[in-house]
Amino acid sequence: MPTALARKYMNSDVLTQPAQQVEAYLAQVLDQRPLPPNLREAARYAVLGPGKRLRPILTLHSASAVGTTQQQGAKEALAAAAAIEMIHCFSLVHDDLPAMDDDNLRRGRPTLHIHSGEAMAILAGDLLMGLAFELIATALEPKELAGRVSAELAIATNDMIAGQVYDTIPDFDDAIEPLERLETIHRHKTGALFQGACRMGAICGGGDEAEIEAITRYAQTVGLMFQIVDDLLDVTQTTEHLGKAAGKDAEQGKETYPGLLGIEPSRQEVKRLQAEAHESLARFDSRADPLRELCDLMAVRRK
Amino acid sequence: MPTALARKYMNSDVLTQPAQQVEAYLAQVLDQRPLPPNLREAARYAVLGPGKRLRPILTLHSASAVGTTQQQGAKEALAAAAAIEMIHCFSLVHDDLPAMDDDNLRRGRPTLHIHSGEAMAILAGDLLMGLAFELIATALEPKELAGRVSAELAIATNDMIAGQVYDTIPDFDDAIEPLERLETIHRHKTGALFQGACRMGAICGGGDEAEIEAITRYAQTVGLMFQIVDDLLDVTQTTEHLGKAAGKDAEQGKETYPGLLGIEPSRQEVKRLQAEAHESLARFDSRADPLRELCDLMAVRRK
Repeated sequence: MPTALARKYMNSDVLTQPAQQVEAYLAQVLDQRPLPPNLREAARYAVLGPGKRLRPILTLHSASAVGTTQQQGAKEALAAAAAIEMIHCFSLVHDDLPAMDDDNLRRGRPTLHIHSGEAMAILAGDLLMGLAFELIATALEPKELAGRVSAELAIATNDMIAGQVYDTIPDFDDAIEPLERLETIHRHKTGALFQGACRMGAICGGGDEAEIEAITRYAQTVGLMFQIVDDLLDVTQTTEHLGKAAGKDAEQGKETYPGLLGIEPSRQEVKRLQAEAHESLARFDSRADPLRELCDLMAVRRK
Repeated sequence: MPTALARKYMNSDVLTQPAQQVEAYLAQVLDQRPLPPNLREAARYAVLGPGKRLRPILTLHSASAVGTTQQQGAKEALAAAAAIEMIHCFSLVHDDLPAMDDDNLRRGRPTLHIHSGEAMAILAGDLLMGLAFELIATALEPKELAGRVSAELAIATNDMIAGQVYDTIPDFDDAIEPLERLETIHRHKTGALFQGACRMGAICGGGDEAEIEAITRYAQTVGLMFQIVDDLLDVTQTTEHLGKAAGKDAEQGKETYPGLLGIEPSRQEVKRLQAEAHESLARFDSRADPLRELCDLMAVRRK
């Protein structure tokens, strides 16, 4: 039985309004860019299916927290939000490939290589990464802002790719402790895009150094919390409920937080990180409330 | 027996000096970026093996043509040159994958997925694309220039990916003539990166609108010429000589210029495009001589 907060998670204005805004914008970007028809269809399939849109929502709420208004930075934050979602979707498409995780199911639908074939999945993934950078470089004004935001997006993307390598083709020094190894994986694999999403938003919103720093700490904390919740869901929920294969971590012998710490201590860690995320936002007024609410919703999410 | 010009092609200062400069810079970029050791090794393997470095050479010579000096734009042009080569190398790595062209040999060595496995080849290819954008966004000053050059790189990359789709997963309207189809493929597949390479160089070098336009026409002409020469080599040379599989186009039933026009008319078309490339440079003084010489060398290359 979901808690009141978990039910709220499914329909919160903190989620649905920005998610719809980003989806409409993404559809427009994918429709307007000259592309071979079959490539466009594959890119649309990968991006416009059901998704939580957490990263772009983080971008938009981070921009609001530092004081974006309709007049200033809103167009830029929306483009940045769409770009980080394209990076996320590209990474899912490549991560699902037979040579990688070999997943047939994603968000309750066949994965892109099942839908469009493997060659198209490779190329559509490549395209989504490239389009993210094209969007930042062409939609953001002034171009000085485009350069700054592009650096954030690129660093986040490359750290995320490094995280995929740590996760799927590990090559760690034997001296590294399992928990440190797990944190290295997730700081890169999930944390990098969370951090990039929030920083891009704060930069588009015109945040100063101290504000960007605070938003970065929020992102890092929430990113780690998100991953622990993900690991907990993988051991406690069904495939049908998640819309993707459950129990895969254990099956593949992957280290997880519940596996290393136990289920109950992992839940305690989620609570500790939730409190830390709130602390990191102490300097912001009520305009950071959506980020605060988002953190609470992520802590109790059921899928 | 190679002609004098073809012999010159192998050792010309127009090629060797900028190629060595770009290779040294690429090695430095790949060594300094924090990365998992196995990912770094794969990226180095893909980028630092033997290669003609035509695209970065075009970038550097385009910058020189519009008047880059050691003091202005040279650092920016070098970063842009390295970035376009990383994009080219990423595209080769993904193009060689089993689900794509399934090639085992590239530049006389095992392809990356043979060397490092398929998962690593996918991820290292992804990384090289991301690193190209990271390099542009972090190494170029002012950031307004980074934004402009990033747009060129992104558009070129995405058009190139569209070209790969046109080439490997064709979905053309039946009404399109074979020659028009072939030109669409190559204008995207090869032409886009040639154009991006030259435009990025001209922009870093501080070229004005008319100069950038002239350099763009040079790039388009030389790009098409390059592809016709490539098709001619595929039918007239051996695998051993090329360092990659020869005769593959016919084997895969792909349309080629010699296949559509005949060998001798294709050679005539090369000469016509060579003359047109020279014309497009008419407005430039001797600082464009390296671009002129490069065009001549590309027209007579034997591998």
